[in-house]
Amino acid sequence: MTGSVGALPTRSIGIDVGGTKALGVALDEHGDVVAEEKRPTPRGADSLGPLVDVLVDLARSLGFDGHLGVGVPGLVTRQGVLRAAPNLDGVADFEVGRLVSERLGSDIEVDNDATCATVAEWKLGAAAGTDNMMLVTLGTGIGGGMVANGAVQRGLNGFAGEFGHMVVHPNGPRCPCGRQGCWERYASGSGLAMLAREAATGRRLRAVVRRAGGDPQDVRGEHVQAAARDGDPEALDVIDDFGRWVALGLSNLTNAFDPEMFVLGGGLAAGADLYLAPIIKWYGELLYQPHLRPMPRVEFAKWGPLAGAVGAALLPSIDRVA
Amino acid sequence: MTGSVGALPTRSIGIDVGGTKALGVALDEHGDVVAEEKRPTPRGADSLGPLVDVLVDLARSLGFDGHLGVGVPGLVTRQGVLRAAPNLDGVADFEVGRLVSERLGSDIEVDNDATCATVAEWKLGAAAGTDNMMLVTLGTGIGGGMVANGAVQRGLNGFAGEFGHMVVHPNGPRCPCGRQGCWERYASGSGLAMLAREAATGRRLRAVVRRAGGDPQDVRGEHVQAAARDGDPEALDVIDDFGRWVALGLSNLTNAFDPEMFVLGGGLAAGADLYLAPIIKWYGELLYQPHLRPMPRVEFAKWGPLAGAVGAALLPSIDRVA
Repeated sequence: MTGSVGALPTRSIGIDVGGTKALGVALDEHGDVVAEEKRPTPRGADSLGPLVDVLVDLARSLGFDGHLGVGVPGLVTRQGVLRAAPNLDGVADFEVGRLVSERLGSDIEVDNDATCATVAEWKLGAAAGTDNMMLVTLGTGIGGGMVANGAVQRGLNGFAGEFGHMVVHPNGPRCPCGRQGCWERYASGSGLAMLAREAATGRRLRAVVRRAGGDPQDVRGEHVQAAARDGDPEALDVIDDFGRWVALGLSNLTNAFDPEMFVLGGGLAAGADLYLAPIIKWYGELLYQPHLRPMPRVEFAKWGPLAGAVGAALLPSIDRVA
Repeated sequence: MTGSVGALPTRSIGIDVGGTKALGVALDEHGDVVAEEKRPTPRGADSLGPLVDVLVDLARSLGFDGHLGVGVPGLVTRQGVLRAAPNLDGVADFEVGRLVSERLGSDIEVDNDATCATVAEWKLGAAAGTDNMMLVTLGTGIGGGMVANGAVQRGLNGFAGEFGHMVVHPNGPRCPCGRQGCWERYASGSGLAMLAREAATGRRLRAVVRRAGGDPQDVRGEHVQAAARDGDPEALDVIDDFGRWVALGLSNLTNAFDPEMFVLGGGLAAGADLYLAPIIKWYGELLYQPHLRPMPRVEFAKWGPLAGAVGAALLPSIDRVA
């Protein structure tokens, strides 16, 4: 597959470090995935050393010959230090770049996992060919990244793209971050489940509650999805409401940044067929001055669970604003 | 005054076109304002030709010798066409750049007035020396602009920076743009007046209502400001609430773009002494993961009503991402 990425080395290794596993891929010079491997992510108090071992081992196993990028889940400084990673026990102020480079005897690139996914979709995915795009990952929470004028924008500290904590309702549900009404309370996987439980507690959603075993408090996103696929109108109403919340945040980001397109990734991308139409409908409703601009495209991500690793592999080959 | 702007020509002309007047300045090679002139903005159905006349005339009167920038109030495309300007009657799809260039026999630069103000504060104002900043203008509404990695970011269509229409309360007051709960319903001059009227209708704010002549519906922002300056605790409560709304939007923008600092401009900058402390207090409360990052600075603008014209004058001399 040929994308819009420039010259690639004959072998680029990317590793996406998640809370449970580290997923590595090798790309050839065309950007095709030619190898894929995973290892469990070491956990616990002294996991930093073992994690470096895993990264070095995976890179070598995938044929490392000088080009490695690593994506990590958390805030990464411009110097490649992972400052905080809620999903990695025992890891804080992790100098990923330095430690792995020393072991491999070669510079490597490190960035936030959502930034890596942004790069994958921008260079070889749904946004190939654009120079102004935003990736929004709809998973348990909401993360993302952005490209403006052909360069990945990381912000002063490398912390740009934390779209999920945009407050969209000052009296909304409490967020683990300490505030109320963050976008990810509504427009993420957890948000879909909350919207469904609210509807179910209001004595709607009987078909969905049955799927969940009878208790409205047990309703999760997948029960709504399954009922919606069967055409249950109440479940489709919840999906519509969810689409409105997603669109509200996209519209806010559009007003601030005026991108050419949004790519939606994360776990909810698996339900793209259900979500895309309501999201686009509400986005059209909510967009500011839609008559003056081409409506930015909204598409789901191409790379799915491989996005982080593929984007990490591309890090050494792209312009990133340092 | 020496700022961080690079080499300037010996004479740079900038004109800020407002709803009632066009304000022109001439800068010398040090960035000092050496001349200032204004003309009434032509209004009405056939005002386009007269407006071009005014711009040409002002430029010549200020000593135009090849370097002119014009700031206009509305959405400006990357090609320098003013698509829509709610405050300029009879002006739509105004090819400012082409028409004025033809008359002057020399290329000129055109941009949105808030983008011009951003440039003034970035190069010669409160944000001099930074490469990552956002200007937020708090006036009747909210506009702004941003600089990332040392370049003005205009978005795909040149429409970036419309921060005022970020929805922060989906059930909030109706906005003229058609949506509900836009940030500028709360954090602008109109927002301050609304917060004050709400408080007054709730039988608070007696000192403020007296200043407004006795009717809570007549309360405006300046009544609150005056009472707050006299130390009226209820007026100070409204200012505090206003500061929280301003901070909420700044915090949302911080999560998305991670700037080094915010510069607050617009009409409300005149009350900076009242607003700055509550805004910074609430910003610190609302910021996501404040322990992991230097808190971005928040300062009021330096240039006041000259910002648009000064920034317009700088347009020909700076890197703008085309």
